[in-house]
Amino acid sequence: MHAEELARPYPTVGLDTDAAEAVRSLTERERPALIVVDELDHPVAVLPASQVLRGAIPRYVQDDPALARVIDESFADQMTAWLAGKTVADLMPTKRTPLPVVAPDDTVLEIAAVMAANRCPLVAVVEDGPDGPRFLGAVSAGELVARALPRV
Amino acid sequence: MHAEELARPYPTVGLDTDAAEAVRSLTERERPALIVVDELDHPVAVLPASQVLRGAIPRYVQDDPALARVIDESFADQMTAWLAGKTVADLMPTKRTPLPVVAPDDTVLEIAAVMAANRCPLVAVVEDGPDGPRFLGAVSAGELVARALPRV
Repeated sequence: MHAEELARPYPTVGLDTDAAEAVRSLTERERPALIVVDELDHPVAVLPASQVLRGAIPRYVQDDPALARVIDESFADQMTAWLAGKTVADLMPTKRTPLPVVAPDDTVLEIAAVMAANRCPLVAVVEDGPDGPRFLGAVSAGELVARALPRV
Repeated sequence: MHAEELARPYPTVGLDTDAAEAVRSLTERERPALIVVDELDHPVAVLPASQVLRGAIPRYVQDDPALARVIDESFADQMTAWLAGKTVADLMPTKRTPLPVVAPDDTVLEIAAVMAANRCPLVAVVEDGPDGPRFLGAVSAGELVARALPRV
């Protein structure tokens, strides 16, 4: 069983996608991550939900979560306010992180190893082609387990 | 809006739960993490799916994901084989990690900050009581976003 067979269509967001819209898309079927693509549709980042949230909260709270405690409650409920006018580019981590991608012929074990090493519940399946990398779909940790660990 | 209102019942696993059974439970409604409790039902770990997978693959592949490539394919598909006879205790990270818990009166922003800091898509809501901490339920990143970012 290879990544190619496991890959499923997965919606992507662009760097200029509205941040609130992108964050909200995580709520659809409890999506585990956002796949961010560039203008050529090549994946540039896979952001797990926790890291999307990281980009969606004020920087001083990222740096010191304890500060969240001193913020006015009604404001603390308004993620909308922090995200207004921002794009996905603003949610990207400042530190460049490795892109969790696998090749179409990678095995279950290779996919699991990439997820584990990147602490990412989703990998992009990308095929190298003459026109550059082509995004084939994604595999989630849940799907991987379902295929690798059949119910007996 | 506080953690108490956001908390939902969430299944837990014990340290002596069968590893394959625990890993498989991630496939139910694409659960983002396992909540591991001790014999007193106190949460001792929240393991994101990627970290559960980490514990479910051979140690030499954890240390060097490239080694996954040299493993025989049919074996690489058999997560069952690696998990046979193991328990959740065997899946736990060797390095002690902070427990992503929030208090019942924590705000949306505090929950988001804990998820971001711990790279964890799920937090346990725990109440301090006379008999020790009491597990009230869990909040996932998707649920948090759905409540903090209502669709307009």
